[in-house]
Amino acid sequence: MVKLAILDVDGTITDSSRRIQESSITTIRKAQDNGKIICLVSGNVIPVMYALQIYIGIRHEVFAENGGVMYYQNRIEKFFEKDKTEKFLDYISGISSARGIFTNVWRYSSMAFEMDADDIEKVRSESDRWNLDITDSGFSWHVLNKGQNKGYALKKLMELHHLEKEDVLVVGDSKNDLSMFVEGVNRATVKNGDPVLKEVSDYISPMNNGEAIPDIFRKFSLI
Amino acid sequence: MVKLAILDVDGTITDSSRRIQESSITTIRKAQDNGKIICLVSGNVIPVMYALQIYIGIRHEVFAENGGVMYYQNRIEKFFEKDKTEKFLDYISGISSARGIFTNVWRYSSMAFEMDADDIEKVRSESDRWNLDITDSGFSWHVLNKGQNKGYALKKLMELHHLEKEDVLVVGDSKNDLSMFVEGVNRATVKNGDPVLKEVSDYISPMNNGEAIPDIFRKFSLI
Repeated sequence: MVKLAILDVDGTITDSSRRIQESSITTIRKAQDNGKIICLVSGNVIPVMYALQIYIGIRHEVFAENGGVMYYQNRIEKFFEKDKTEKFLDYISGISSARGIFTNVWRYSSMAFEMDADDIEKVRSESDRWNLDITDSGFSWHVLNKGQNKGYALKKLMELHHLEKEDVLVVGDSKNDLSMFVEGVNRATVKNGDPVLKEVSDYISPMNNGEAIPDIFRKFSLI
Repeated sequence: MVKLAILDVDGTITDSSRRIQESSITTIRKAQDNGKIICLVSGNVIPVMYALQIYIGIRHEVFAENGGVMYYQNRIEKFFEKDKTEKFLDYISGISSARGIFTNVWRYSSMAFEMDADDIEKVRSESDRWNLDITDSGFSWHVLNKGQNKGYALKKLMELHHLEKEDVLVVGDSKNDLSMFVEGVNRATVKNGDPVLKEVSDYISPMNNGEAIPDIFRKFSLI
Protein backbone atom coordinates (compact mmCIF):
# COMPACT_ATOMS: atom_id res chain seq x y z
CA MET A 1 0.00 0.00 0.00
CA VAL A 2 1.39 3.36 -1.02
CA LYS A 3 2.02 5.64 1.97
CA LEU A 4 4.09 8.36 0.32
CA ALA A 5 3.86 9.85 -3.16
CA ILE A 6 6.65 11.91 -4.68
CA LEU A 7 5.45 14.12 -7.50
CA ASP A 8 7.37 16.06 -10.10
CA VAL A 9 5.82 19.51 -10.64
CA ASP A 10 6.16 20.97 -14.17
CA GLY A 11 4.24 18.83 -16.67
CA THR A 12 3.17 16.39 -13.93
CA ILE A 13 0.80 18.37 -11.72
CA THR A 14 0.54 21.21 -14.29
CA ASP A 15 -0.51 21.41 -17.91
CA SER A 16 2.11 21.68 -20.66
CA SER A 17 2.36 25.47 -20.08
CA ARG A 18 3.13 24.97 -16.36
CA ARG A 19 -0.34 26.13 -15.28
CA ILE A 20 -1.34 24.06 -12.28
CA GLN A 21 -4.27 21.73 -12.81
CA GLU A 22 -7.05 22.54 -10.33
CA SER A 23 -7.93 18.82 -10.11
CA SER A 24 -4.38 17.92 -9.06
CA ILE A 25 -4.64 20.37 -6.14
CA THR A 26 -7.97 18.84 -5.08
CA THR A 27 -6.55 15.32 -5.43
CA ILE A 28 -3.40 16.05 -3.42
CA ARG A 29 -5.47 17.55 -0.59
CA LYS A 30 -7.84 14.58 -0.58
CA ALA A 31 -4.93 12.09 -0.39
CA GLN A 32 -3.44 14.04 2.53
CA ASP A 33 -6.78 13.96 4.29
CA ASN A 34 -6.62 10.16 3.82
CA GLY A 35 -3.32 10.16 5.75
CA LYS A 36 -1.03 9.90 2.74
CA ILE A 37 2.28 11.75 2.66
CA ILE A 38 2.64 13.88 -0.47
CA CYS A 39 6.00 15.42 -1.42
CA LEU A 40 7.09 17.48 -4.41
CA VAL A 41 10.47 17.24 -6.16
CA SER A 42 11.30 19.78 -8.84
CA GLY A 43 14.20 21.37 -10.69
CA ASN A 44 12.82 24.74 -9.67
CA VAL A 45 14.12 26.96 -6.84
CA ILE A 46 13.34 26.74 -3.10
CA PRO A 47 11.12 29.85 -2.80
CA VAL A 48 8.97 28.54 -5.65
CA MET A 49 8.63 25.19 -3.87
CA TYR A 50 7.91 27.04 -0.63
CA ALA A 51 5.08 28.87 -2.45
CA LEU A 52 3.68 25.64 -3.87
CA GLN A 53 3.79 24.05 -0.42
CA ILE A 54 1.77 26.90 1.10
CA TYR A 55 -0.73 27.45 -1.66
CA ILE A 56 -1.38 23.78 -2.45
CA GLY A 57 -1.28 23.03 1.26
CA ILE A 58 1.40 20.30 1.11
CA ARG A 59 2.04 19.04 4.66
CA HIS A 60 5.44 17.43 4.16
CA GLU A 61 8.83 18.02 2.54
CA VAL A 62 9.35 19.68 -0.82
CA PHE A 63 12.61 19.46 -2.78
CA ALA A 64 14.03 22.03 -5.15
CA GLU A 65 16.96 21.94 -7.59
CA ASN A 66 16.37 18.32 -8.58
CA GLY A 67 16.82 17.01 -5.05
CA GLY A 68 19.69 19.27 -3.99
CA VAL A 69 17.77 21.36 -1.45
CA MET A 70 14.86 20.53 0.84
CA TYR A 71 12.32 22.83 2.48
CA TYR A 72 10.18 21.91 5.48
CA GLN A 73 8.71 23.96 8.33
CA ASN A 74 10.59 27.23 7.79
CA ARG A 75 13.91 25.45 7.31
CA ILE A 76 16.01 25.06 4.18
CA GLU A 77 18.38 22.08 4.10
CA LYS A 78 21.05 22.12 1.42
CA PHE A 79 22.67 18.79 0.46
CA PHE A 80 24.97 20.07 -2.30
CA GLU A 81 26.97 23.26 -2.89
CA LYS A 82 26.82 25.66 -5.80
CA ASP A 83 30.51 26.68 -6.10
CA LYS A 84 31.30 24.26 -8.89
CA THR A 85 28.01 24.47 -10.80
CA GLU A 86 28.24 28.28 -10.79
CA LYS A 87 31.80 28.17 -12.14
CA PHE A 88 30.72 25.69 -14.80
CA LEU A 89 27.90 27.95 -15.98
CA ASP A 90 30.32 30.89 -16.20
CA TYR A 91 32.67 28.76 -18.25
CA ILE A 92 30.14 27.37 -20.74
CA SER A 93 28.54 30.83 -21.13
CA GLY A 94 31.89 31.88 -22.60
CA ILE A 95 32.27 29.00 -25.06
CA SER A 96 28.65 28.25 -26.08
CA SER A 97 25.17 29.75 -26.40
CA ALA A 98 24.38 28.73 -22.79
CA ARG A 99 22.91 31.57 -20.70
CA GLY A 100 21.78 31.40 -17.09
CA ILE A 101 18.11 31.94 -16.33
CA PHE A 102 16.55 34.60 -14.17
CA THR A 103 15.77 32.40 -11.14
CA ASN A 104 19.45 31.47 -10.56
CA VAL A 105 19.59 34.27 -7.94
CA TRP A 106 17.48 32.01 -5.71
CA ARG A 107 19.55 28.84 -6.22
CA TYR A 108 21.57 27.09 -3.50
CA SER A 109 23.26 24.15 -5.26
CA SER A 110 22.65 23.97 -9.01
CA MET A 111 22.37 26.38 -11.92
CA ALA A 112 19.75 26.51 -14.65
CA PHE A 113 20.34 27.67 -18.21
CA GLU A 114 19.09 27.72 -21.75
CA MET A 115 21.12 26.85 -24.82
CA ASP A 116 20.74 26.26 -28.55
CA ALA A 117 20.22 22.60 -29.46
CA ASP A 118 23.48 22.69 -31.49
CA ASP A 119 25.47 23.12 -28.29
CA ILE A 120 24.02 20.24 -26.29
CA GLU A 121 26.75 17.75 -27.15
CA LYS A 122 29.56 20.24 -26.55
CA VAL A 123 28.15 21.30 -23.16
CA ARG A 124 27.51 17.67 -22.20
CA SER A 125 31.09 16.68 -22.92
CA GLU A 126 32.32 19.67 -20.88
CA SER A 127 30.11 18.58 -17.96
CA ASP A 128 31.74 15.11 -18.13
CA ARG A 129 35.17 16.73 -18.01
CA TRP A 130 34.08 18.78 -14.95
CA ASN A 131 32.53 15.69 -13.31
CA LEU A 132 29.09 17.35 -13.23
CA ASP A 133 25.73 16.28 -14.65
CA ILE A 134 23.47 18.21 -16.97
CA THR A 135 19.79 17.43 -17.30
CA ASP A 136 16.83 18.82 -19.25
CA SER A 137 13.62 19.29 -17.26
CA GLY A 138 11.72 20.03 -20.46
CA PHE A 139 11.52 23.64 -19.26
CA SER A 140 15.23 24.45 -18.88
CA TRP A 141 18.65 22.81 -18.59
CA HIS A 142 20.25 22.29 -15.20
CA VAL A 143 23.85 21.65 -14.18
CA LEU A 144 24.04 19.50 -11.07
CA ASN A 145 26.64 18.05 -8.76
CA LYS A 146 27.31 14.30 -9.13
CA GLY A 147 24.66 12.40 -7.18
CA GLN A 148 22.30 15.40 -7.10
CA ASN A 149 19.11 14.11 -8.65
CA LYS A 150 15.56 13.14 -7.84
CA GLY A 151 16.72 9.66 -6.80
CA TYR A 152 18.64 11.36 -3.99
CA ALA A 153 15.40 12.99 -2.81
CA LEU A 154 13.64 9.62 -2.96
CA LYS A 155 16.29 8.02 -0.69
CA LYS A 156 16.19 10.97 1.71
CA LEU A 157 12.39 10.79 1.99
CA MET A 158 12.41 7.01 2.56
CA GLU A 159 14.90 7.53 5.40
CA LEU A 160 13.01 10.45 6.94
CA HIS A 161 9.69 8.60 6.91
CA HIS A 162 11.14 5.12 7.65
CA LEU A 163 9.57 3.60 4.55
CA GLU A 164 10.39 0.78 2.15
CA LYS A 165 10.35 1.02 -1.64
CA GLU A 166 6.94 -0.63 -1.91
CA ASP A 167 5.44 2.10 0.28
CA VAL A 168 6.39 4.78 -2.24
CA LEU A 169 4.85 6.01 -5.49
CA VAL A 170 6.83 8.26 -7.85
CA VAL A 171 5.12 10.24 -10.60
CA GLY A 172 6.89 12.13 -13.36
CA ASP A 173 6.81 13.06 -17.02
CA SER A 174 10.34 13.70 -18.21
CA LYS A 175 13.89 12.35 -18.38
CA ASN A 176 15.02 14.16 -15.25
CA ASP A 177 12.51 12.10 -13.25
CA LEU A 178 14.21 8.83 -14.27
CA SER A 179 16.59 8.70 -11.28
CA MET A 180 13.63 8.24 -8.91
CA PHE A 181 12.01 5.56 -11.10
CA VAL A 182 13.95 2.78 -9.39
CA GLU A 183 13.07 -0.91 -9.26
CA GLY A 184 10.76 -1.81 -6.37
CA VAL A 185 9.16 1.64 -6.12
CA ASN A 186 5.68 2.14 -7.61
CA ARG A 187 6.24 4.15 -10.77
CA ALA A 188 3.64 6.06 -12.77
CA THR A 189 3.84 8.40 -15.71
CA VAL A 190 1.45 10.36 -17.90
CA LYS A 191 0.22 9.63 -21.42
CA ASN A 192 2.61 12.18 -22.89
CA GLY A 193 5.48 11.14 -20.59
CA ASP A 194 8.99 10.60 -21.92
CA PRO A 195 9.47 7.12 -23.52
CA VAL A 196 12.35 6.35 -21.11
CA LEU A 197 9.92 6.72 -18.20
CA LYS A 198 7.20 4.73 -19.91
CA GLU A 199 9.62 1.82 -20.34
CA VAL A 200 10.13 1.48 -16.58
CA SER A 201 6.68 2.53 -15.37
CA ASP A 202 4.25 0.21 -13.61
CA TYR A 203 1.38 2.38 -14.81
CA ILE A 204 0.95 4.80 -17.71
CA SER A 205 -2.12 6.98 -17.31
CA PRO A 206 -4.34 7.46 -20.38
CA MET A 207 -4.42 11.19 -19.50
CA ASN A 208 -1.85 13.91 -20.28
CA ASN A 209 0.17 15.92 -17.75
CA GLY A 210 -1.66 17.15 -14.62
CA GLU A 211 -4.95 15.70 -15.83
CA ALA A 212 -3.49 12.30 -14.95
CA ILE A 213 -3.12 12.95 -11.22
CA PRO A 214 -6.66 11.97 -10.11
CA ASP A 215 -6.43 8.83 -12.29
CA ILE A 216 -3.00 7.83 -10.95
CA PHE A 217 -3.98 8.53 -7.34
CA ARG A 218 -7.08 6.34 -7.74
CA LYS A 219 -5.01 3.60 -9.39
CA PHE A 220 -2.68 3.45 -6.37
CA SER A 221 -5.52 3.86 -3.82
CA LEU A 222 -4.33 7.23 -2.52
CA ILE A 223 -7.84 8.60 -2.88
CA MET B 1 -16.65 48.38 -17.48
CA VAL B 2 -13.85 46.81 -15.46
CA LYS B 3 -10.76 46.12 -17.59
CA LEU B 4 -8.23 45.37 -14.86
CA ALA B 5 -8.65 43.61 -11.52
CA ILE B 6 -6.07 43.83 -8.74
CA LEU B 7 -6.34 40.99 -6.27
CA ASP B 8 -4.79 40.55 -2.88
CA VAL B 9 -3.56 36.95 -2.39
CA ASP B 10 -3.69 35.60 1.18
CA GLY B 11 -7.28 35.36 2.38
CA THR B 12 -8.61 36.77 -0.90
CA ILE B 13 -7.85 34.09 -3.49
CA THR B 14 -7.02 31.51 -0.80
CA ASP B 15 -8.89 30.07 2.14
CA SER B 16 -8.11 31.25 5.67
CA SER B 17 -5.13 28.83 5.85
CA ARG B 18 -3.59 30.32 2.68
CA ARG B 19 -4.54 27.28 0.57
CA ILE B 20 -5.44 28.52 -2.88
CA GLN B 21 -9.07 28.06 -3.88
CA GLU B 22 -9.29 25.97 -7.06
CA SER B 23 -12.31 28.02 -8.18
CA SER B 24 -10.36 31.28 -7.96
CA ILE B 25 -7.72 29.83 -10.33
CA THR B 26 -10.44 28.78 -12.79
CA THR B 27 -12.13 32.19 -12.50
CA ILE B 28 -8.92 34.18 -13.03
CA ARG B 29 -8.09 32.14 -16.16
CA LYS B 30 -11.60 32.61 -17.54
CA ALA B 31 -11.46 36.40 -17.01
CA GLN B 32 -8.10 36.53 -18.79
CA ASP B 33 -9.56 34.56 -21.68
CA ASN B 34 -12.25 37.26 -21.80
CA GLY B 35 -9.49 39.85 -22.32
CA LYS B 36 -9.40 41.14 -18.74
CA ILE B 37 -6.11 42.11 -17.11
CA ILE B 38 -5.59 40.35 -13.78
CA CYS B 39 -2.81 41.44 -11.41
CA LEU B 40 -1.84 40.27 -7.93
CA VAL B 41 -0.59 42.49 -5.10
CA SER B 42 0.66 40.84 -1.93
CA GLY B 43 2.85 41.44 1.09
CA ASN B 44 4.72 38.27 0.18
CA VAL B 45 8.13 38.06 -1.55
CA ILE B 46 8.90 38.28 -5.27
CA PRO B 47 9.80 34.60 -5.89
CA VAL B 48 6.49 33.58 -4.32
CA MET B 49 4.63 36.00 -6.60
CA TYR B 50 6.70 34.70 -9.53
CA ALA B 51 5.54 31.18 -8.65
CA LEU B 52 1.90 32.25 -8.40
CA GLN B 53 2.18 34.01 -11.76
CA ILE B 54 3.47 30.86 -13.46
CA TYR B 55 1.26 28.29 -11.78
CA ILE B 56 -1.98 30.28 -11.91
CA GLY B 57 -1.03 31.49 -15.38
CA ILE B 58 -1.32 35.24 -14.66
CA ARG B 59 -0.46 37.14 -17.85
CA HIS B 60 0.35 40.56 -16.37
CA GLU B 61 2.23 42.21 -13.53
CA VAL B 62 2.42 40.86 -10.01
CA PHE B 63 3.54 42.96 -7.02
CA ALA B 64 5.29 41.75 -3.89
CA GLU B 65 6.12 43.44 -0.59
CA ASN B 66 2.86 45.43 -0.48
CA GLY B 67 3.57 47.21 -3.77
CA GLY B 68 7.30 47.79 -3.29
CA VAL B 69 8.52 45.39 -5.98
CA MET B 70 7.04 44.33 -9.30
CA TYR B 71 7.68 41.23 -11.39
CA TYR B 72 6.85 40.90 -15.07
CA GLN B 73 8.43 38.90 -17.89
CA ASN B 74 11.65 37.80 -16.17
CA ARG B 75 12.27 41.27 -14.77
CA ILE B 76 12.12 42.50 -11.18
CA GLU B 77 11.50 46.22 -10.70
CA LYS B 78 12.15 47.61 -7.24
CA PHE B 79 10.48 50.92 -6.29
CA PHE B 80 11.73 51.16 -2.70
CA GLU B 81 14.96 50.20 -0.91
CA LYS B 82 15.44 47.93 2.10
CA ASP B 83 18.31 49.72 3.91
CA LYS B 84 16.07 51.51 6.35
CA THR B 85 13.47 48.77 6.90
CA GLU B 86 16.25 46.26 7.58
CA LYS B 87 17.88 48.58 10.15
CA PHE B 88 14.49 49.14 11.77
CA LEU B 89 13.87 45.40 12.14
CA ASP B 90 17.33 44.98 13.72
CA TYR B 91 16.51 47.78 16.13
CA ILE B 92 13.06 46.58 17.23
CA SER B 93 14.32 42.98 17.55
CA GLY B 94 16.55 44.33 20.32
CA ILE B 95 13.87 46.21 22.22
CA SER B 96 10.74 44.07 21.70
CA SER B 97 9.50 40.57 20.92
CA ALA B 98 9.67 41.31 17.16
CA ARG B 99 11.51 38.63 15.17
CA GLY B 100 12.08 38.56 11.41
CA ILE B 101 10.46 35.77 9.43
CA PHE B 102 12.15 33.17 7.29
CA THR B 103 11.30 34.70 3.86
CA ASN B 104 13.13 37.97 4.58
CA VAL B 105 16.15 36.53 2.71
CA TRP B 106 14.13 37.03 -0.48
CA ARG B 107 13.02 40.60 0.24
CA TYR B 108 14.06 43.68 -1.74
CA SER B 109 12.40 46.61 0.01
CA SER B 110 10.49 45.72 3.18
CA MET B 111 10.89 43.34 6.11
CA ALA B 112 8.34 41.00 7.63
CA PHE B 113 8.17 40.02 11.29
CA GLU B 114 6.10 38.53 14.06
CA MET B 115 5.59 40.05 17.48
CA ASP B 116 3.55 39.62 20.64
CA ALA B 117 0.35 41.68 20.69
CA ASP B 118 1.67 43.53 23.78
CA ASP B 119 4.39 45.12 21.67
CA ILE B 120 2.26 46.47 18.84
CA GLU B 121 1.90 49.99 20.25
CA LYS B 122 5.55 50.27 21.17
CA VAL B 123 6.71 49.11 17.72
CA ARG B 124 4.18 51.36 16.01
CA SER B 125 5.43 54.41 17.86
CA GLU B 126 9.02 53.48 16.94
CA SER B 127 7.99 53.19 13.29
CA ASP B 128 6.55 56.74 13.48
CA ARG B 129 9.82 57.98 14.92
CA TRP B 130 11.70 56.28 12.05
CA ASN B 131 9.23 57.67 9.48
CA LEU B 132 8.29 54.14 8.39
CA ASP B 133 4.95 52.35 8.23
CA ILE B 134 4.01 49.05 9.82
CA THR B 135 1.09 46.99 8.61
CA ASP B 136 -0.50 43.67 9.49
CA SER B 137 -1.40 41.44 6.53
CA GLY B 138 -3.28 39.08 8.82
CA PHE B 139 -0.44 36.58 8.27
CA SER B 140 2.54 38.66 9.46
CA TRP B 141 3.62 42.20 10.21
CA HIS B 142 5.52 44.25 7.63
CA VAL B 143 7.68 47.33 7.96
CA LEU B 144 7.48 49.48 4.85
CA ASN B 145 8.94 52.68 3.49
CA LYS B 146 6.63 55.72 3.49
CA GLY B 147 4.40 55.55 0.40
CA GLN B 148 5.06 51.82 -0.08
CA ASN B 149 1.62 50.29 -0.07
CA LYS B 150 -0.93 48.63 -2.31
CA GLY B 151 -2.23 52.06 -3.39
CA TYR B 152 1.19 52.62 -4.95
CA ALA B 153 0.77 49.43 -7.00
CA LEU B 154 -2.71 50.57 -8.06
CA LYS B 155 -1.33 53.89 -9.39
CA LYS B 156 1.55 52.12 -11.14
CA LEU B 157 -0.81 49.67 -12.85
CA MET B 158 -3.19 52.43 -13.97
CA GLU B 159 -0.24 54.26 -15.54
CA LEU B 160 1.20 51.14 -17.19
CA HIS B 161 -2.13 50.13 -18.71
CA HIS B 162 -3.39 53.71 -19.42
CA LEU B 163 -6.54 53.18 -17.41
CA GLU B 164 -8.89 55.36 -15.37
CA LYS B 165 -10.19 54.54 -11.90
CA GLU B 166 -13.54 53.31 -13.20
CA ASP B 167 -11.73 50.69 -15.31
CA VAL B 168 -10.25 49.07 -12.23
CA LEU B 169 -11.56 46.60 -9.64
CA VAL B 170 -9.69 46.01 -6.38
CA VAL B 171 -10.40 42.99 -4.20
CA GLY B 172 -9.03 42.44 -0.72
CA ASP B 173 -9.83 41.14 2.75
CA SER B 174 -7.67 42.95 5.28
CA LYS B 175 -6.47 46.33 6.54
CA ASN B 176 -3.35 46.35 4.41
CA ASP B 177 -5.57 46.38 1.30
CA LEU B 178 -7.17 49.68 2.33
CA SER B 179 -4.67 51.92 0.49
CA MET B 180 -5.91 50.57 -2.86
CA PHE B 181 -9.59 50.97 -1.91
CA VAL B 182 -9.68 54.56 -3.20
CA GLU B 183 -12.73 56.56 -4.24
CA GLY B 184 -13.68 56.05 -7.88
CA VAL B 185 -12.18 52.57 -8.15
CA ASN B 186 -14.54 49.57 -8.03
CA ARG B 187 -14.00 48.02 -4.60
CA ALA B 188 -15.03 44.56 -3.45
CA THR B 189 -14.39 42.58 -0.33
CA VAL B 190 -15.34 39.20 1.08
CA LYS B 191 -17.92 38.29 3.71
CA ASN B 192 -15.23 37.92 6.37
CA GLY B 193 -13.31 41.00 5.19
CA ASP B 194 -12.06 43.60 7.65
CA PRO B 195 -14.75 46.13 8.72
CA VAL B 196 -12.60 49.04 7.47
CA LEU B 197 -12.75 47.57 3.96
CA LYS B 198 -16.45 46.82 4.18
CA GLU B 199 -17.12 50.47 5.01
CA VAL B 200 -15.64 51.66 1.72
CA SER B 201 -16.58 48.73 -0.52
CA ASP B 202 -19.01 48.97 -3.43
CA TYR B 203 -19.71 45.28 -3.04
CA ILE B 204 -19.42 42.81 -0.17
CA SER B 205 -19.65 39.21 -1.34
CA PRO B 206 -21.82 36.84 0.71
CA MET B 207 -18.96 34.31 0.45
CA ASN B 208 -15.81 34.04 2.57
CA ASN B 209 -12.21 34.41 1.36
CA GLY B 210 -11.32 32.80 -1.99
CA GLU B 211 -14.80 31.34 -2.35
CA ALA B 212 -15.93 34.89 -3.15
CA ILE B 213 -13.84 35.30 -6.31
CA PRO B 214 -16.29 33.71 -8.81
CA ASP B 215 -19.13 35.72 -7.24
CA ILE B 216 -17.20 39.03 -7.33
CA PHE B 217 -15.95 38.43 -10.89
CA ARG B 218 -19.53 37.76 -12.04
CA LYS B 219 -20.79 40.85 -10.21
CA PHE B 220 -18.29 43.06 -12.10
CA SER B 221 -18.81 41.22 -15.43
CA LEU B 222 -15.26 39.89 -15.63
CA ILE B 223 -16.60 36.42 -16.41
